[in-house]
Amino acid sequence: MEQKGFTVWFTGLSGAGKTTIADAIEPLLRERGITKLEKLDGDVVRTHLSKGLGFSKEDRDTNIRRIGWVAEVLTRNGVCVLASAISPYREIRDEVKAGVGNFVEVYVSCSIEELTRRDVKGLYEKAIKGEIKNFTGVSDPYEAPTNADVVVDSEKEDLAESVAKVMAKLEGLGYVPAAVRG
Amino acid sequence: MEQKGFTVWFTGLSGAGKTTIADAIEPLLRERGITKLEKLDGDVVRTHLSKGLGFSKEDRDTNIRRIGWVAEVLTRNGVCVLASAISPYREIRDEVKAGVGNFVEVYVSCSIEELTRRDVKGLYEKAIKGEIKNFTGVSDPYEAPTNADVVVDSEKEDLAESVAKVMAKLEGLGYVPAAVRG
Repeated sequence: MEQKGFTVWFTGLSGAGKTTIADAIEPLLRERGITKLEKLDGDVVRTHLSKGLGFSKEDRDTNIRRIGWVAEVLTRNGVCVLASAISPYREIRDEVKAGVGNFVEVYVSCSIEELTRRDVKGLYEKAIKGEIKNFTGVSDPYEAPTNADVVVDSEKEDLAESVAKVMAKLEGLGYVPAAVRG
Repeated sequence: MEQKGFTVWFTGLSGAGKTTIADAIEPLLRERGITKLEKLDGDVVRTHLSKGLGFSKEDRDTNIRRIGWVAEVLTRNGVCVLASAISPYREIRDEVKAGVGNFVEVYVSCSIEELTRRDVKGLYEKAIKGEIKNFTGVSDPYEAPTNADVVVDSEKEDLAESVAKVMAKLEGLGYVPAAVRG
């Protein structure tokens, strides 16, 4: 069976677990025969496509549109894309969704309190002190999805639970064949 | 048979015929079963990935590196890429080649005299008058490939001849199955 292209788009605050979930899903997809697979990580893509862009609304939008365009090109050529990017603005996410077509929006939810407590990279502390400007969720807006295809809550669920929800949705949508049990 | 990803990179001066040859090859490749196929045109990609970049050496290099990165991602996922971009600097083309791996460099050659005579978009006249700055071949350098996989000369060959040369090379390299004759 020829693989159908689709994009799983993980949106949520910095540190919520977008990339962690994408990394955990990748081997499961490969095991189901999804061998054409590309992860697009917001930070990594910045170095390749958006060096020089900052964090103003306009620059953020441009960065997301670029990731979206690459996801679109890959998707229409039969590739599965796992994209992780804060992508704070609903309008731009919807624009990317319209361009890509086979688009599954996954909202990785987590409260600011929990993220500040975890603060893996020490960014929230700096943002709260004002040492980092335009930090999403602290000093810059994040527009949560109102009709995401999957909502996972990394504060209340463990990783396995979040991964299972996403996999179930991808099966339900027919992008991924169901697991074969022996 | 699963399609193998590869990139055909057309380099040459503006108006030499890079996009024309890529457009002519596309249906021939599709007929041979190369259905995962994406054309990346330097000018089109500029609007998606490099808006705001100019024509300084640095900005040109950045633009070519971005096209190269997208070609790399597509190629490693089994897609055939037909990329057309002036890509004037040998060093950057070689860098892209190293990143992509399955890379076929096609030099579309044409003399400045002939291009000035054709001048389809009126750009050479403006460049010669100094109305356009940094115009490759007139007021900006073009480093011709020294060991391209295919050299076509759009001044001396007709389109069919150039297309046949590229197709023969792609067959020879095993990227495209030979035509089946009835």
